[in-house]
Amino acid sequence: MKVSRYKKEDEVTYALGATVVMEYLNMAPQLVEGVIMHPAFKSEDTIKKIKDITSNNKIQLSIEEKPFNILSQKENCFVIGVIKKVPGKLTDGNHVVLVNPSNAGNMGTIIRSCAGFGVKDIAVITPAVDNFDPKTIRASMGAAARVNIETFSSFDDYQSRFSDNNMYPFMLDGSTLLQETTINEPFSIIFGNEATGLPAQFQQVGQPVRIEHTNNIDSLNLPIAASIALYESTKNHFVK
Amino acid sequence: MKVSRYKKEDEVTYALGATVVMEYLNMAPQLVEGVIMHPAFKSEDTIKKIKDITSNNKIQLSIEEKPFNILSQKENCFVIGVIKKVPGKLTDGNHVVLVNPSNAGNMGTIIRSCAGFGVKDIAVITPAVDNFDPKTIRASMGAAARVNIETFSSFDDYQSRFSDNNMYPFMLDGSTLLQETTINEPFSIIFGNEATGLPAQFQQVGQPVRIEHTNNIDSLNLPIAASIALYESTKNHFVK
Repeated sequence: MKVSRYKKEDEVTYALGATVVMEYLNMAPQLVEGVIMHPAFKSEDTIKKIKDITSNNKIQLSIEEKPFNILSQKENCFVIGVIKKVPGKLTDGNHVVLVNPSNAGNMGTIIRSCAGFGVKDIAVITPAVDNFDPKTIRASMGAAARVNIETFSSFDDYQSRFSDNNMYPFMLDGSTLLQETTINEPFSIIFGNEATGLPAQFQQVGQPVRIEHTNNIDSLNLPIAASIALYESTKNHFVK
Repeated sequence: MKVSRYKKEDEVTYALGATVVMEYLNMAPQLVEGVIMHPAFKSEDTIKKIKDITSNNKIQLSIEEKPFNILSQKENCFVIGVIKKVPGKLTDGNHVVLVNPSNAGNMGTIIRSCAGFGVKDIAVITPAVDNFDPKTIRASMGAAARVNIETFSSFDDYQSRFSDNNMYPFMLDGSTLLQETTINEPFSIIFGNEATGLPAQFQQVGQPVRIEHTNNIDSLNLPIAASIALYESTKNHFVK
């Protein structure tokens, strides 16, 4: 199967690693153009599942080593999925909004937490890191196959389409503490860039919230802040 | 200044990047053996601060390029700190306990969150990733200079020394939900290895807790789980 080092303009991306590929095969087989197994891959159960699903869905399957030399990082990787890049479309409900995120690994970790806490729609305001980057998909552990990610060229475009959502921009100087804020559904919890946070004008958007921490650090890591907000916003869903 | 690619048995480690080095110079100058600036480093304010602190504390300072070729990753790095490795010693109070953590970046992110939420003592049960690894220190953004990290060869060793602490092992099958658990101080919040979690016998330790999530994911990323637990355990400290 022909693969090439990933570029943003490509029509396909890559799922690297058996766990990640299995997520795509289970959740979104229509997006999988092909699967490549390394000749040294010996996990019989997984091989059987891959053979069944690819056969049932008429997905190309090959066993070869060369694509791993082209695509794979230092980490252990014995299965590659070739994934069609189809832009997502947000549905109504609760959203995470990422304004100008810049790091592929961070975006992947946030996707994993979104899937974990049951928020399936993520808006990304550009400029932003490529949400189809194989590093994003890998950091998500394949949860990227379970969420809708739609990009918007401005926050205004997003906000005008989802004007019924309750907006909660997370800012270091947000006026209410997260633990004292009622997050009403449908919510949009909004996070800025890793280095710069949200621009000051987000103080005018909905209810700005802060996750207070000591002054021993400048800020929390972005996926940490987003995941704490996700936990707090959805915690009542999990109480029986 | 002589530097060499970091090895676990070395007596020094390295702080890579101006932000990280400044944390050590400000918080733990006694641990800094030397500072190296890249000839292309032009941030005048930071250069002045580095010159003042190194001069006041009789810390060696050099301007040279070669150490960066030996130590520095692809990321932008214009300042290196040579840091003495001095094992930490836990103090009484609230602790994070990491049982067999395996990833240096994850440990650094957890250290950053600990500093953020005011928990300054971290117990590491070996075997574990090296908490002095430059990748740990960099992922902590230098917060490693602000916490005490002590390693223990078994959880029993840790528990017998801090038997007055309330123990909360975080497990996928913990019997109470985090949002329904009162975390009493002094607390020990306990987390297992990234891939395997805590061994089943931790069900017998204190009050096992779970952070419930949908079955769309196998588990939360370790630093995410630890940081949500830190947030929930310390949230009352931040309410005025």
